[in-house]
Amino acid sequence: MRISVPKEIKPGEKRVALVPDIISKLTKLGHEVFIESGAGVAADYSDEQFLAAGAQIKQGDVLANSDVVLSVQPLTPNQIRSLKKGALTISFLSPTTSTDSIDAAVSASVTALSLELVPRISRAQSMDALTSQALCAGYKAALVAAELSPKFFPLLMTAAGTVTPAKVVVLGTGVAGLQAIATAKRLGAVVSAYDVRTSSADEVKSMGAKFISLELEALEGAGGYAREMTEERATRQRELLTPFISAADVLITTAAVPGRTAPRLVTAAMVSHMTPGSVVVDLAAESGGNVEGSVSGELVITKDGVKIWGAKDVPSQLAFHASMLFSRNVVNLVLLMNKSVDGKSTGQIEPDFSDEIIDSATITHNGIRREKSK
Amino acid sequence: MRISVPKEIKPGEKRVALVPDIISKLTKLGHEVFIESGAGVAADYSDEQFLAAGAQIKQGDVLANSDVVLSVQPLTPNQIRSLKKGALTISFLSPTTSTDSIDAAVSASVTALSLELVPRISRAQSMDALTSQALCAGYKAALVAAELSPKFFPLLMTAAGTVTPAKVVVLGTGVAGLQAIATAKRLGAVVSAYDVRTSSADEVKSMGAKFISLELEALEGAGGYAREMTEERATRQRELLTPFISAADVLITTAAVPGRTAPRLVTAAMVSHMTPGSVVVDLAAESGGNVEGSVSGELVITKDGVKIWGAKDVPSQLAFHASMLFSRNVVNLVLLMNKSVDGKSTGQIEPDFSDEIIDSATITHNGIRREKSK
Repeated sequence: MRISVPKEIKPGEKRVALVPDIISKLTKLGHEVFIESGAGVAADYSDEQFLAAGAQIKQGDVLANSDVVLSVQPLTPNQIRSLKKGALTISFLSPTTSTDSIDAAVSASVTALSLELVPRISRAQSMDALTSQALCAGYKAALVAAELSPKFFPLLMTAAGTVTPAKVVVLGTGVAGLQAIATAKRLGAVVSAYDVRTSSADEVKSMGAKFISLELEALEGAGGYAREMTEERATRQRELLTPFISAADVLITTAAVPGRTAPRLVTAAMVSHMTPGSVVVDLAAESGGNVEGSVSGELVITKDGVKIWGAKDVPSQLAFHASMLFSRNVVNLVLLMNKSVDGKSTGQIEPDFSDEIIDSATITHNGIRREKSK
Repeated sequence: MRISVPKEIKPGEKRVALVPDIISKLTKLGHEVFIESGAGVAADYSDEQFLAAGAQIKQGDVLANSDVVLSVQPLTPNQIRSLKKGALTISFLSPTTSTDSIDAAVSASVTALSLELVPRISRAQSMDALTSQALCAGYKAALVAAELSPKFFPLLMTAAGTVTPAKVVVLGTGVAGLQAIATAKRLGAVVSAYDVRTSSADEVKSMGAKFISLELEALEGAGGYAREMTEERATRQRELLTPFISAADVLITTAAVPGRTAPRLVTAAMVSHMTPGSVVVDLAAESGGNVEGSVSGELVITKDGVKIWGAKDVPSQLAFHASMLFSRNVVNLVLLMNKSVDGKSTGQIEPDFSDEIIDSATITHNGIRREKSK
């Protein structure tokens, strides 16, 4: 089948859905891979590298006549309308915010899978692009914080005396939060972390960070994500977190759930208690922000001298490796749909809805928006 | 005596010569400390903190009537002319580039000490501000490189497979280079380093980095700095370094000697062999650059997609801790000149040229530019 990768068109998106290294996994099954010329350039993969890896480079539109289209961002309604009937697309198609693209896929009888809906089960881990990209974001969050801080992260013993390590607080200890903890620890900071899921305390401690225990009930939700909380509990949580945040040199917030508005964990009043020069990195800024006053894509300096960095397209800032991990995820999902008979590829890629992963991830098929059990 | 700290006036200079914590070391000897209002703000030290620490805050000019003036950057000729005769100033006064300020100090009979001339002897380590500030610069260099790289520094084992660590090459393994190595290692990169002083190989290896051995004679110079080399040797060195640089994801160059033009270690041709997305951090950009094509204060992207970051005011980007370390250095130098009788401070600060440190560091005294033995 013809598998195509268009150049991403969303401003700020530097990733590419396939990287050269992985092309052979598809071509050896009998598929043809078409890459739009320049699709990898922003992630530092050249057309020449794709060609050498066995892909074909196409100038301009790569969508028409494609059987499978792989992209990071969802295709636009116009892009979807240019696909042939029955074509299959895989991307971060959001069931809540990409409704126009989903409608277009229904009208065009295009099969649309979303990487956001890959279930968090063990067998699907290698296809979990939310996780791989959150890893990139968490790493970057800690680096950005270190870069913005006027203080050293590590303890330093110098001839002019000792410099004490920076105090970093991480709120939200999902994949991004844990990677932010790991990176801040690598740099030598003293790290504390909080999550409404108290079950994450052991993971936090195993990384050498302190888990902040508040006198509040835990909120474990489905799929490993946190449940939403009452406003009363949120208020109490903010009160209890205030002294920890006041004492921090760096605050990194990572509490975001795809397709939902981010919870407001930190108010402007809480930020105002931080010392001048303190740094706040709000990884959830694109979905409304965990921190009052954060603006996605901007560095805001408060009147109290606190720097608030609002995240925007963070995995794209690590485009080379973010693309590499994404492409492994998406290819693993494609391979799951690749038909074989007697261990030999038939050259067909077809969704099999008896497979829980495919069933969960597929939003539209045969001109129908599929209802999800969850 | 009256010890004063003016607000730094050089654009981009965020440091302050004293921080609140250290004021008491001076006041308990009977000195008065005057801080120009706002002098610490860019380094996140407020007037209130200085007041609370026992300093006095002065609006506007703090220089007239001062006995001792401490600053990071050299005072300008105008500032020096506003000092009283016999006043003493300590700063990074460069004997080669600050000639106008030195001339002004001679005319005004101002005693001028330069932190650049503190000798690199064991007893003077706690006064060695070049070292403390190079420490800040080296740390920042590695952070900036990690921030600019589209690749992870650490090895990562993920459900989508392994990410190999970044390859970092450091040229110049003085204080800044060693700290860049330490920081890149902390972040998990694989680090190699080169210096013309082969004696630094053990230090490099002790940090877990590889020392690049070239078939060239070593160039150990006086005071722990490298000697200059012939153009023939420089050419050969560049040839031998090329394969190491071509294979690197990140190149950090730190070969600078105060008051001298930085050696050209890396040509544009060598940079062009690096892969797209590679990062070059040239810490010596302010003194001419180790890397052809670097521009101080700018991020240059070559036509081959290599990012070259040219350093400018790097310690100021870590202003809080850079100021803390600087102030400890400068106060230690002041304390060395503080007279005491029977272990009690007389309240006088006077240079004693029988002390090697003071002798080396003093450029002008009693209207005379002092000749230096070296």
